[in-house]
Amino acid sequence: MYQGSASRVTILAHLFGILSLILILVWLLHYQGGLEYDSNDANRVFNVHPFLMFFGFIFMAGEGMMAFNTVEAERKVRKFIHMTFHLIAICLGIVGIKAVFKFHDMMNNSPDVYSLHSWIGISTFTLFCLQWLIGFASFMFPQASVQTRARILPWHVSGGRALLYMAICAAVTGLMEKATFLQLQHNHQTRVINFTGLFILLFGLFVDLSIALARYRF
Amino acid sequence: MYQGSASRVTILAHLFGILSLILILVWLLHYQGGLEYDSNDANRVFNVHPFLMFFGFIFMAGEGMMAFNTVEAERKVRKFIHMTFHLIAICLGIVGIKAVFKFHDMMNNSPDVYSLHSWIGISTFTLFCLQWLIGFASFMFPQASVQTRARILPWHVSGGRALLYMAICAAVTGLMEKATFLQLQHNHQTRVINFTGLFILLFGLFVDLSIALARYRF
Repeated sequence: MYQGSASRVTILAHLFGILSLILILVWLLHYQGGLEYDSNDANRVFNVHPFLMFFGFIFMAGEGMMAFNTVEAERKVRKFIHMTFHLIAICLGIVGIKAVFKFHDMMNNSPDVYSLHSWIGISTFTLFCLQWLIGFASFMFPQASVQTRARILPWHVSGGRALLYMAICAAVTGLMEKATFLQLQHNHQTRVINFTGLFILLFGLFVDLSIALARYRF
Repeated sequence: MYQGSASRVTILAHLFGILSLILILVWLLHYQGGLEYDSNDANRVFNVHPFLMFFGFIFMAGEGMMAFNTVEAERKVRKFIHMTFHLIAICLGIVGIKAVFKFHDMMNNSPDVYSLHSWIGISTFTLFCLQWLIGFASFMFPQASVQTRARILPWHVSGGRALLYMAICAAVTGLMEKATFLQLQHNHQTRVINFTGLFILLFGLFVDLSIALARYRF
């Protein structure tokens, strides 16, 4: 079922995910003063947002998408792992989104949800939760009939892939917004941010390719 | 070959493409003072960039991707149209990229190619040209053997879809960079920019879905 090229693509997806994670930590810890949700320093509160939206949301969701095919276990176990990864992504995503609202409150109530990044991000997160609920009700509990599951599956897979790309767009617009806001030009920090963005984009492309090469059963 | 749902998806793709085009023109003509390559006003020169990178590059490439399946004609004619759309995309893309370098020169040589947007954009454009050249040499002239074409086709299709997403990421990061740079918050112009970004993203998702639903022959 799972062929050689698919597993090589999956390894590359993991690699780009881990590289993105390392670079985002270098950026936040070395250049941006660290991250802490309960800090009095508004910037440290803000920094929880990019970390959790990538590691908590995008990375977990991407790994969860691939887990359905990469984990060697009974079908039921793989479904459960797939569902759990996405549930973790939702929980950590909520904390990540709360962090940026908290940051805006700390910065004398600077306005919320005006940028393209926030519009793409909030649309993605809302549709992601909806996709999880429909997936849970169709494939987990109460499990739908075989015919219904077969009819829903292609939409579940296509919807998941579309949401992955939306999440990647949210991530790169977020990095772009922050970098422009910081008025960075040619310097080390910009390069760290840009490589983070490129690796997140490559993570998305390789997760998608890994999914495309896999075969699905419900 | 081309089924009902595929053609409905294609119509939606055209629709989102045209909506993006209208909104980008509203933005550039109404809020940003118009566009002109040979202007003495640096902002009018800059405005050629977003217009041509969307209408000239992304829209043409997306329509070219779908044309292989939507145009009702002999296979050779469809291949020729597909190739020509992408060639137009490359030519207009070059003018669009030149416009932003010219703008930087006019703005007292402000630095080039430092932002995530420029990194994603230039990577996308370079790989797009490479993809076009490989496609031309494999499928057009000198046409490769049937076996080689059959081997290259899945890579050509997957590569094209990946490049489409890279181009969408370039577009949304570009809009995000410009909006942050203009320090827009809650106002009409922001909403026009955000809806442009969302419609470009939807154009990408629906072009991709249209391609996914189609069947390929080389």
